[in-house]
Amino acid sequence: MLDEFSLIKSIEPKEQRHQELIKGIGDDAAIYSTENNFEQIVCMDTMVEGVHFTKATMTPYHIGWKALAANISDIAAMGGYPDYYLVSLAMPAEWSGDIKEMYRGMEDLSALYQMDLIGGDTTSTKNGLVVTITAVGHTDKRRHYLRSSAKPGDQVFITGYLGESAAGLALLQKEIDIKDQYARRQLIESHQKPMPQVEAARLLGKIPCRYAVNDISDGLASEANEIAEASGVTITINYQSLPVSKPLMFLEPSDRKQFMLSGGEDYQLLITAPEENSEELIEIFQQHHINLTKIGIVTEGCAEVYLIDEDNKTLLKKSGYNHFNSNEE
Amino acid sequence: MLDEFSLIKSIEPKEQRHQELIKGIGDDAAIYSTENNFEQIVCMDTMVEGVHFTKATMTPYHIGWKALAANISDIAAMGGYPDYYLVSLAMPAEWSGDIKEMYRGMEDLSALYQMDLIGGDTTSTKNGLVVTITAVGHTDKRRHYLRSSAKPGDQVFITGYLGESAAGLALLQKEIDIKDQYARRQLIESHQKPMPQVEAARLLGKIPCRYAVNDISDGLASEANEIAEASGVTITINYQSLPVSKPLMFLEPSDRKQFMLSGGEDYQLLITAPEENSEELIEIFQQHHINLTKIGIVTEGCAEVYLIDEDNKTLLKKSGYNHFNSNEE
Repeated sequence: MLDEFSLIKSIEPKEQRHQELIKGIGDDAAIYSTENNFEQIVCMDTMVEGVHFTKATMTPYHIGWKALAANISDIAAMGGYPDYYLVSLAMPAEWSGDIKEMYRGMEDLSALYQMDLIGGDTTSTKNGLVVTITAVGHTDKRRHYLRSSAKPGDQVFITGYLGESAAGLALLQKEIDIKDQYARRQLIESHQKPMPQVEAARLLGKIPCRYAVNDISDGLASEANEIAEASGVTITINYQSLPVSKPLMFLEPSDRKQFMLSGGEDYQLLITAPEENSEELIEIFQQHHINLTKIGIVTEGCAEVYLIDEDNKTLLKKSGYNHFNSNEE
Repeated sequence: MLDEFSLIKSIEPKEQRHQELIKGIGDDAAIYSTENNFEQIVCMDTMVEGVHFTKATMTPYHIGWKALAANISDIAAMGGYPDYYLVSLAMPAEWSGDIKEMYRGMEDLSALYQMDLIGGDTTSTKNGLVVTITAVGHTDKRRHYLRSSAKPGDQVFITGYLGESAAGLALLQKEIDIKDQYARRQLIESHQKPMPQVEAARLLGKIPCRYAVNDISDGLASEANEIAEASGVTITINYQSLPVSKPLMFLEPSDRKQFMLSGGEDYQLLITAPEENSEELIEIFQQHHINLTKIGIVTEGCAEVYLIDEDNKTLLKKSGYNHFNSNEE
């Protein structure tokens, strides 16, 4: 298996050449100043057939939607608003009839944000579709949110609900079963048509304070560890505080816990904010009918994440919680 | 086989949403204004193992170099200077030991332009390496060059020499042979370490006039047709005017002609400019020791490209000149 984390470390540039570069590698997207009142944001995300999706669980429309959603989510996690995107496809011949549907999925999502598709590349390949998207966005000057901004005393928040996308995938793969048709539909929709949290990210800007933000693309355990590492702090999450969506109530508690802690592709935002701003923050999210839940705290300590579940406090590793080998954890 | 041209047409957005978008799909890269004295340029280019390269003819270092060169060349073809790049790899396990060398190839080229690597993505795949790069650059406000700017009366120029990269590949694949070791080395270097023409593009800016520019990534025939189509003009190229590099003198005339007209990946610039600026243009390129050769003219007419070779005038199609089936042309 590839170790992406050590690879990123090994390719990280030794020097920064542009003074106007605010953040390059090491966060969800890159930001650079353009000498006006905005900062430009650029990110890039790849989905590979057989690794990130298969035709068995995703239609071409959904693949297009989700590939773009992952990029918009990265822009949102920087506090930005998405403006443009570019699409590169390495495409096997058998996919050529599906490409329009894939672009339709991207178009429908991009229309919600008035994004322009501004370029890309299309090449053939013998094996497996590879979809790479670059998104470009902007944020008001100095209103970007880095992973490295968390400080002891901060509170930890999550938007929306976690685990729905992973549960939807498990349903599609018949690893779990839920009889309730409404719950089934919602979970599968969460997996196939996830919504990036652009509005939530912009709402943070209404209360100008210090935020660390990560989007939940690889699961809460992984994302919380990334903030803890980048900020050099300890994060403690209270499992009982995590909001549970109605469809997840139908699951076995152990399945639910695994999906909520380790399930990826929810594209919710994990946020840390100073305690003195917390009340106002919760209030403004309530006013705009966007769920925001306090789930933990930031303290001094090693770059670690702890999970409190009733009376148990355990280390929550980047690899996450897996009930199949929870004895080993 | 995929038809990229009709695909691009089919996915082209029906509306342009940002007023500040100057050029989206349909040129080498996208440009948008950022309300200051510069325009930002973004482009994206993909190389696929087994389609664009194999380990038999390219080392990982060369693959990295060329993948970035293709993107920088697109920035140059818009009149821009490259600033940043992002890299996405879909990587089979057997490539993991080669990745550092690939990034070293990119780093060495990017250092020539003081570019910053600012992001990307790395995913695994079962089959065939896919390298996608996004480059971001800038140009002075309203100093960009579009394919659609050619007008009747313009003259047509080319930087450097054509056909070297294709000849280098043919040498590596033992389809041709050249005894002269210096010539061999130069052609193979042209294939493995092509140089994008950033300086040439910037030099055009010294004489502010109307330019249409395309970079030679898919061969002269293809690129000239793209300018003819985008501008709605006829381009006539005189084969005898094309500059012939010394190493290409060693080839059979029919091979040489095919490589020069249809060989891709030279990353030279094809330029049209008003006749009244031509003399000054040639002068300034001479002063800077960059080869610039007049190879043809632009006239009113259908969007077509003609080739004059001694007394013969033939239609030069996008697919280019192929001496193996020249009877059919």
